[in-house]
Amino acid sequence: MAVTEVVEIEGHIVDSLILAKVMDIILAAGADYEVVDVHIGKTNTDVSRARLEVSADDDATLDALLVELQAHGANRVAQQQHAEVVEADSAGVLPAGFYSTTNLPTAVRLAGHWTPVENPEMDCGLVVLGDGRVRTVPVHRVQAGDRVVIGTGGIRVTPPARPRGASPFEFMSSEVSSEKPKSHIVAEVAARIRLAREAGAKVLVVAGPAVVHTGAGPCLARLVRDGWVDVLFAGNGFAAHDIESNVMGTSLGVPVEGGTSAEGGHANHLRVINEVRRHGSIAAAVDAGYVTGGVMFECVRRQVPFVLGGSVRDDGPLPDVYANVVEAADAMRALLPGVGLALMLASTLHAIATGNCLSSGVETFVVDINQAVVTKLADRGSHQALGVVTDVGPFVSALSEQLSSAART
Amino acid sequence: MAVTEVVEIEGHIVDSLILAKVMDIILAAGADYEVVDVHIGKTNTDVSRARLEVSADDDATLDALLVELQAHGANRVAQQQHAEVVEADSAGVLPAGFYSTTNLPTAVRLAGHWTPVENPEMDCGLVVLGDGRVRTVPVHRVQAGDRVVIGTGGIRVTPPARPRGASPFEFMSSEVSSEKPKSHIVAEVAARIRLAREAGAKVLVVAGPAVVHTGAGPCLARLVRDGWVDVLFAGNGFAAHDIESNVMGTSLGVPVEGGTSAEGGHANHLRVINEVRRHGSIAAAVDAGYVTGGVMFECVRRQVPFVLGGSVRDDGPLPDVYANVVEAADAMRALLPGVGLALMLASTLHAIATGNCLSSGVETFVVDINQAVVTKLADRGSHQALGVVTDVGPFVSALSEQLSSAART
Amino acid sequence: MAVTEVVEIEGHIVDSLILAKVMDIILAAGADYEVVDVHIGKTNTDVSRARLEVSADDDATLDALLVELQAHGANRVAQQQHAEVVEADSAGVLPAGFYSTTNLPTAVRLAGHWTPVENPEMDCGLVVLGDGRVRTVPVHRVQAGDRVVIGTGGIRVTPPARPRGASPFEFMSSEVSSEKPKSHIVAEVAARIRLAREAGAKVLVVAGPAVVHTGAGPCLARLVRDGWVDVLFAGNGFAAHDIESNVMGTSLGVPVEGGTSAEGGHANHLRVINEVRRHGSIAAAVDAGYVTGGVMFECVRRQVPFVLGGSVRDDGPLPDVYANVVEAADAMRALLPGVGLALMLASTLHAIATGNCLSSGVETFVVDINQAVVTKLADRGSHQALGVVTDVGPFVSALSEQLSSAART
Amino acid sequence: MAVTEVVEIEGHIVDSLILAKVMDIILAAGADYEVVDVHIGKTNTDVSRARLEVSADDDATLDALLVELQAHGANRVAQQQHAEVVEADSAGVLPAGFYSTTNLPTAVRLAGHWTPVENPEMDCGLVVLGDGRVRTVPVHRVQAGDRVVIGTGGIRVTPPARPRGASPFEFMSSEVSSEKPKSHIVAEVAARIRLAREAGAKVLVVAGPAVVHTGAGPCLARLVRDGWVDVLFAGNGFAAHDIESNVMGTSLGVPVEGGTSAEGGHANHLRVINEVRRHGSIAAAVDAGYVTGGVMFECVRRQVPFVLGGSVRDDGPLPDVYANVVEAADAMRALLPGVGLALMLASTLHAIATGNCLSSGVETFVVDINQAVVTKLADRGSHQALGVVTDVGPFVSALSEQLSSAART
Repeated sequence: MAVTEVVEIEGHIVDSLILAKVMDIILAAGADYEVVDVHIGKTNTDVSRARLEVSADDDATLDALLVELQAHGANRVAQQQHAEVVEADSAGVLPAGFYSTTNLPTAVRLAGHWTPVENPEMDCGLVVLGDGRVRTVPVHRVQAGDRVVIGTGGIRVTPPARPRGASPFEFMSSEVSSEKPKSHIVAEVAARIRLAREAGAKVLVVAGPAVVHTGAGPCLARLVRDGWVDVLFAGNGFAAHDIESNVMGTSLGVPVEGGTSAEGGHANHLRVINEVRRHGSIAAAVDAGYVTGGVMFECVRRQVPFVLGGSVRDDGPLPDVYANVVEAADAMRALLPGVGLALMLASTLHAIATGNCLSSGVETFVVDINQAVVTKLADRGSHQALGVVTDVGPFVSALSEQLSSAART
Repeated sequence: MAVTEVVEIEGHIVDSLILAKVMDIILAAGADYEVVDVHIGKTNTDVSRARLEVSADDDATLDALLVELQAHGANRVAQQQHAEVVEADSAGVLPAGFYSTTNLPTAVRLAGHWTPVENPEMDCGLVVLGDGRVRTVPVHRVQAGDRVVIGTGGIRVTPPARPRGASPFEFMSSEVSSEKPKSHIVAEVAARIRLAREAGAKVLVVAGPAVVHTGAGPCLARLVRDGWVDVLFAGNGFAAHDIESNVMGTSLGVPVEGGTSAEGGHANHLRVINEVRRHGSIAAAVDAGYVTGGVMFECVRRQVPFVLGGSVRDDGPLPDVYANVVEAADAMRALLPGVGLALMLASTLHAIATGNCLSSGVETFVVDINQAVVTKLADRGSHQALGVVTDVGPFVSALSEQLSSAART
Repeated sequence: MAVTEVVEIEGHIVDSLILAKVMDIILAAGADYEVVDVHIGKTNTDVSRARLEVSADDDATLDALLVELQAHGANRVAQQQHAEVVEADSAGVLPAGFYSTTNLPTAVRLAGHWTPVENPEMDCGLVVLGDGRVRTVPVHRVQAGDRVVIGTGGIRVTPPARPRGASPFEFMSSEVSSEKPKSHIVAEVAARIRLAREAGAKVLVVAGPAVVHTGAGPCLARLVRDGWVDVLFAGNGFAAHDIESNVMGTSLGVPVEGGTSAEGGHANHLRVINEVRRHGSIAAAVDAGYVTGGVMFECVRRQVPFVLGGSVRDDGPLPDVYANVVEAADAMRALLPGVGLALMLASTLHAIATGNCLSSGVETFVVDINQAVVTKLADRGSHQALGVVTDVGPFVSALSEQLSSAART
Repeated sequence: MAVTEVVEIEGHIVDSLILAKVMDIILAAGADYEVVDVHIGKTNTDVSRARLEVSADDDATLDALLVELQAHGANRVAQQQHAEVVEADSAGVLPAGFYSTTNLPTAVRLAGHWTPVENPEMDCGLVVLGDGRVRTVPVHRVQAGDRVVIGTGGIRVTPPARPRGASPFEFMSSEVSSEKPKSHIVAEVAARIRLAREAGAKVLVVAGPAVVHTGAGPCLARLVRDGWVDVLFAGNGFAAHDIESNVMGTSLGVPVEGGTSAEGGHANHLRVINEVRRHGSIAAAVDAGYVTGGVMFECVRRQVPFVLGGSVRDDGPLPDVYANVVEAADAMRALLPGVGLALMLASTLHAIATGNCLSSGVETFVVDINQAVVTKLADRGSHQALGVVTDVGPFVSALSEQLSSAART
């Protein structure tokens, strides 16, 4: 005999595909649904709403299914009960049955009303603070005694909305194939950056070493200098090659500008790292005149905050690199409030790390020549991610030209 | 008891890796070698020469091995005998034991002296003409009564030389990775094109539809208009989308310049094909004013010869397309004499077809965003092929800028 | 002042994403919609229906938009008028304004009632036969005097349905990534093949040379021998390497089974092609005992019809290869009636050619190691295409094992 | 007026391509060479030797060139001088002009004789210990007062040799394309693993999460259980999904064995990580019966040492994960002595990290479905690296079958 529960979804549930996705999840779980009622918004700005009665063979299946459905914004109707909260009994460990977060806007029912979660981030626990605020907390930061939400009762998740207005985000496709003209896309990304800035949002750039290798370092440096970049995330490799290309004129030993394609200077990046270590920090190396240009130089000069997250493959590393990756991720989290647009340039590791921390509302552009990387990144985390399969060098160069004539002061 | 034979290689056998390759083939076949004598050229312009005694367990292994070695330019020393020639007894079929060609310079010993093969092309037979000349002939063009070379006796193959002088061709690598700066490469390709033209050689472009889809159509059209392209090979798709983008402003229904990324005009290419069919040919459609710009338009206007080879996936096709692919390949062959440099732009099928017909001496540049395609193409055929992994749109655009200031008249 | 028109969509329009797609197309075209009424089916087997009033700035925009919408199954409500039909005035050319087909089920209003199109195929014209039947006709097969449908009036297109029941087709994703377990997928494909056969449908295999190169030739041969393959489409390369691997034990000169990875026998495929040419056909070569195993051998023995479509890169070609690609595509079309499932194995060219001719209802599985190829193929043509990113060798091997225990007699 | 220097290379310099590479580097640097004398070994086991006089325009060019040449084993003839050694004046910083290591066998001339470097590793400094031994030291481990080699005088590098005997390593190609049969390669890798073990060498496996996602976890677990794996390097993701698949039956929420392809359990990996954190370590979770199977379980049970290197994208992380990446790399280094063969399975980050620490003599196999990853990894570090482009799931499954019948006790 089937067990049932009614769930409700509200928002742009047709054009954002939420309703179809919810139906799909139900059927794929071997359960079934019946449409209780549905209201479709008249225009594309009106919201729609649907209620589905979900039926499954047993309670276990139904419960697991309801957890999945809620992760997509389908909340149980019959949940006037409060969220259940228990204390963590040891540091760094969530209580059993903890509510695992999505990156969608979320509210928790406490003391009779809905409290919004302050900083949506996926794969975290929810901690109720002493003053009643609710925050996501990564597992490693839980303290003994923290009041953690468990179960799924008393939790409401808002489904993602489709970006409004003329948008580079294509329908049902988070990817611009290598066979599409890129000049539009560059223009549209430039326009979104301008829009984000006009709306007072910060622009985050996550950059991989290929930005430097492909010769686009000076273009990204110009974007920083012109004030288009508010936060930079990268790794030891990006910063080392950026500095190498400015101090030595090579990237991984290959001349960045002109000349022969001769191999050479295989140790250049190591010498540069060693010298910056001698200075104690990138900022000190800039102050001492050792580094006189490039992305890191411009960040230091313009006081653009950056996080260089370490990785196990790093040479050196540079003194600014967080060798402790848990601290690196926390440093990244600390810079995310206010970020409205993220541009991920030929970075895999740091782009995934960033995507893990972003809330669903941050517009994200992923640029890489490797389709597999773009797919992987654009499918994660953000519901507003657009992947662009292209050579990052010409892309950043064109973006820099698009924005340069309108430098922000 | 082992059987042995002495082979000889001459040329730039160390720096072109021929000697190492030959040693490798011998060992991989389970055979062995002993260096009889070796002379290494003093400078990089002097030729070297080596003789190896090859020993195998039995005659069959040795014979098969000698065939493979000859394909790399290692010729038997003891071959003062003449080439053996037999008559083909039916059209379109080579005699059993026919000599299968490489694309390297080849000579045949007939009537006591070595006759060079006029048109080296791989995977053909060798036909001795009435006047003593020797030509490669694809199997389908053999006529009954043709005098065909069989066996490997009396045949001498010259190993490929490394390109001389400052060259974009990197050592032991026929590929420029996506993580290298492309501005050099573009400049170097432009320089090689100029060198080829100065040397009186023709420049061949093989283009795929992505050239148009990525918005680079006008840049390639300018290269044709400015006289940098002597021969064009493409398929129905390239020509149809080139014309579509000029007549309708879309490519596969996607607007080529600016505007929204709206889907639309899915039938545009079919309408364009239909109209050109009505005119009877692309040239007629140009004359009638139906086509007023683009690559095909410029080819018609400048009388740049082109071959559009059909494929089984074609819509239409355009009236100029060779529906018979054997005739298409023959039409391509007819335009190859004099070609010194080939530029393959986001084309797989037609690029492979072209590579099959090119002699080893033609410098070839393969540009594609897909590394697998680049590897496949650059490894085939030509020993002077350089693969470039990048987005073809910006590449052609930059190449066009590099060459435009020095238009040829 | 805006112009408006009401369109209607009916079917599984929510869970098949049709409604969302239609809304998206309208907005992307710069037009707008208002929901007139909507009925959502109660369960996942009930159909839904929606009417939207579409408004655009001018007639031209609206007309272009209606054409696009119809291609997705959104038909004008106010179209009681008959389809307009004009005679083609020359062979191989459709009349101006011809209706360009989709591969969806389509009906044409003639003489007061709706006549279904017999053989849906995309990018064709619609010809009304003397007896009132309507067929799709590729542009090259139009005859002078053929009665061709023009405009979009009196045409009704049915939107694609989602596959019913437990299905390997994932939601909103036509692709199985390389990071998913493949054993399920193989089992699911095997189950779909059994289902198709039980339903009386034919199974079509489109195979590329990599099937042979990766050592899966014998597995595919077994599938043919066991009766699981009803139709085979391939090119000269597949057939030549299949025969080469059986006659010579190599594929492109590389030993297919065990032994060293030695290069060798670079001319083997050419010798095999030459011998089959001597016999006159593959069947004759089988009868004469020259070919004694492999996929082509089994096709001949079991009288499984095959089409080998020529391409401009072919060596030889084999005598069975259609050198004329237009005739090849027509030969493929002739074998499609009754095909219910298509399996595309490491083929790009012939898989695209096949996809061009398939109606939307044919379940299609695309297997390739290159994600870009899979994406390209699975996105085209069929609405029921599932791409699988994996190495084709192990895939075909596992599929053959799955099906072998249940050989069909 | 040109400056000159004579360099000498000794070893398998023709068939290992060293001589050609050296000539290429000289010409690419704009310098020139003249062959002083050359001796080519008579058979493939005899060593060869060459002396080249290198001439450049100025001392700076010549000096830079000599550094590059030495990195490939071309040592200056006229270097009877001792290596120059200076003390590091601060911790974590090498003295200016430090000698930057390759991963090739290296010797340092001290007190009149050549001392071999104990642990070749690339991108390190060379430190002379109190007892005269010489070790590579990564920059972060340098102590104030360490005696560090500077310049290139008194240093001799041995060029890499080609692997001897029948070998899966193809000539001039470190890559097995996706279009080759994989059954050979699996058999050859299995044979190399047996050879390595018979020679007393350790086998290292570096594994990425896709091993688990593709369903190959149980096969790798069996290889560990059967004693074929001596050391395991991985990240938080691999270990978490391995444990998730054993505790929950899913990998990233996707069922690993059979059933539907339903999405679900998106939080499973986080719950598993949380529980292992509660236990305090993977070993404690195994002891407590929480983890009862899988790769990590087998490692604990068989006391196979493992290093889980943290990364900035990690959830949790598991308690065994090194959050400090510099310590992680040092922990990896500590386990490398004795390793003779490395198998890198669908890992990018940890595979690169491992490649950075391996000496050139370790046979390395890189398996990944993405050609770009394979190329990147197989081109780095080891001169004996073979890349295999294939789906890792079937590969590990087949390898496990190959080795299982011959389990080591």
